[in-house]
Amino acid sequence: MLDSTIQSEKIHQAIAILQEKEIDCWMTFVRETEHNADPALPLISPANVTWHTAFIITQSGKKIVIAGRYDAENFRRMGVWDEVISYDQSIQPDLVRVMDQINPRQIAINYSESDTAADGLSHGMFLSLKRYFEGKPWQLVSAEGILNALRGRKTPAEVSRLRDAVSLTAQIIDKITAILRPGLSEEDIYRFVHAEYKKAGVVPSWDKAYCPTVTVGPDSPVGHVSASAQYVTKPGDLVRIDQGVVLNDYISDIQRVWYLQPQGESLIPDKVQHAFDSVRAAILAAEKALRPGVEGWTVDEAARRTITAAGYPEYQHAVGHGIGRTVHDGATLLGPRWERYGRTPYGIVEVGNCFTLELGVHVAGYGLVSLEEDVLVTDHGVEYLGAPQTHLIVVKC
Amino acid sequence: MLDSTIQSEKIHQAIAILQEKEIDCWMTFVRETEHNADPALPLISPANVTWHTAFIITQSGKKIVIAGRYDAENFRRMGVWDEVISYDQSIQPDLVRVMDQINPRQIAINYSESDTAADGLSHGMFLSLKRYFEGKPWQLVSAEGILNALRGRKTPAEVSRLRDAVSLTAQIIDKITAILRPGLSEEDIYRFVHAEYKKAGVVPSWDKAYCPTVTVGPDSPVGHVSASAQYVTKPGDLVRIDQGVVLNDYISDIQRVWYLQPQGESLIPDKVQHAFDSVRAAILAAEKALRPGVEGWTVDEAARRTITAAGYPEYQHAVGHGIGRTVHDGATLLGPRWERYGRTPYGIVEVGNCFTLELGVHVAGYGLVSLEEDVLVTDHGVEYLGAPQTHLIVVKC
Repeated sequence: MLDSTIQSEKIHQAIAILQEKEIDCWMTFVRETEHNADPALPLISPANVTWHTAFIITQSGKKIVIAGRYDAENFRRMGVWDEVISYDQSIQPDLVRVMDQINPRQIAINYSESDTAADGLSHGMFLSLKRYFEGKPWQLVSAEGILNALRGRKTPAEVSRLRDAVSLTAQIIDKITAILRPGLSEEDIYRFVHAEYKKAGVVPSWDKAYCPTVTVGPDSPVGHVSASAQYVTKPGDLVRIDQGVVLNDYISDIQRVWYLQPQGESLIPDKVQHAFDSVRAAILAAEKALRPGVEGWTVDEAARRTITAAGYPEYQHAVGHGIGRTVHDGATLLGPRWERYGRTPYGIVEVGNCFTLELGVHVAGYGLVSLEEDVLVTDHGVEYLGAPQTHLIVVKC
Repeated sequence: MLDSTIQSEKIHQAIAILQEKEIDCWMTFVRETEHNADPALPLISPANVTWHTAFIITQSGKKIVIAGRYDAENFRRMGVWDEVISYDQSIQPDLVRVMDQINPRQIAINYSESDTAADGLSHGMFLSLKRYFEGKPWQLVSAEGILNALRGRKTPAEVSRLRDAVSLTAQIIDKITAILRPGLSEEDIYRFVHAEYKKAGVVPSWDKAYCPTVTVGPDSPVGHVSASAQYVTKPGDLVRIDQGVVLNDYISDIQRVWYLQPQGESLIPDKVQHAFDSVRAAILAAEKALRPGVEGWTVDEAARRTITAAGYPEYQHAVGHGIGRTVHDGATLLGPRWERYGRTPYGIVEVGNCFTLELGVHVAGYGLVSLEEDVLVTDHGVEYLGAPQTHLIVVKC
């Protein structure tokens, strides 16, 4: 029942990355991953584990799992690991024995102050490792660089799954367009979208509490906020919906904006149209700046300059984040050089990276104009994973 | 849309626990909890967060959240926090300012070598804290004791939700009994159970890859193994299913065993019946040993002695684990004193704790006899959260 095609691809990719980065050994060290998940685990394992488990990959191409008795069988069935060692009472003796054989200069482990997707090792597990390896010469280093590359460089199979998730999301957006009318609360719209997810047999790509994030009219607060019964659509409102789905373990993350055009009006108000055009221009500026070899922050800066030059305040977030198995997929961030983002805006954009491009502005009296597209970096520039929004969707009231 | 009734209860419970344990301040420090989850977070927050967020609760009863701009609103809406501070670029200045005001002797943070449920702080986030608090006199200590108590002592509302999950699981077990017959593969049974979950609008309480775990006949391997097409029911087989559901954020975890009685037979083979009786006796021995004030390992020992005295090998796991929001809910473990389990078997059983009681034995030529019940510790002993299995379920072929 376990499909591990992508994990097998990623394990081979990891060996090449260790060679490129000249790191002897990479270890993912986890336990009880149902509730203490390491974001690196799903890249190399199709199943969660319960007892302490070490996934060891070396520059020389060795691939070893040490797992508790009841977890080991899933890894034997993958067929990609050279050795699957199982234990009953403690992982320590097997782990130390295997490492003594490898005797690496460095062991890269999954911690990072900057990149959450490379920070799956818990502090308690780190303390256990220090205790197990006391007196050994192996240097424990951050696997941040390895994980940036491994997560960020999507394989064709991964990109194909992302496209499928984006395509399903586009279908749901069309259904929203068909039902939008005055008199719907944010909660009504939220429930409609959840019913569509259920029909499609998918779950929201982030916390169900605020996916979709529905923002109706000028007074609804912006943020990761759950839909409210208080804000109800009326003619002249902007409606913004930020949402995505998980399909075959890969996600989408799309924002669309609708204008509820009052009866008798046939034009879009100037300040609404200007806001839309400015947001779209900023997305296009980011798209143009996004190419292999640039640092992430330069893409953000292109969009940020465009939107502020158009007379709007700066958005208080990054113009783009990686997407993949999770909606904030780590690695290079297309974001400003703020302390909060650590080193991630300095990451280098690479072929195979998939990002969102997103920003919005508030229009007094109408609401939020905010767009978000999902794109792939290729060697010649950017490919959209689905058709972008190029004009306001007008719903006649 | 966010129901935070239980979180508000738990936040007040936390203050009492800080007073009892004489710890000045407890802080949950997280970011991007969609993929770097801290198991402590859902106890005090109804939503995930994206940017660095600190949840600070003090012995004197102060309750403060510092969250990124887009995450803060969900906490304002909870109504239980005295202060919700939001920031844009870095959490550091606000966090240090708030801590300067509190000036605690100790700050308990979520790390533990022993208890995974108290080990949600990543090593990278720990390094950030050390950097933020450099030169400050505050001692960073493990919140293990606080979290053991807070997770372990279920409120009546939490117990009620666990009962609901167990009750739904019992209904699904009855449906399995109705369809069991020769000629079904483990995969067939797995798919039937998943279809029932879907009908009920619930998800499996652990990894869908091996929840339910279906073990058919004498040759299927035991463990956290996904269902196989290879093992198909035939007359004379034992069928064991280990499964549970998440209902309203609380879980169930139940094992049941069926005997496919061949046509013309009316008795259960002696060695099958003896195995069932011995497993049941060991569960009863654990039930009898389980009362407030005992250390977890003594409950395991009561069951372990019973099953080995009956002539069977020791089971290679704990006789019981906490259940709650997650299927391995941390805190005290009813397990043997093995290195792998750290200090958790030495935890003290308290009123309000909810545990599984579970073990199994293999019967050559027939399959696995394994039972698992979900129970609540009260001041007078043990209450089952649903009716236990007291005899083999016989399916006539």
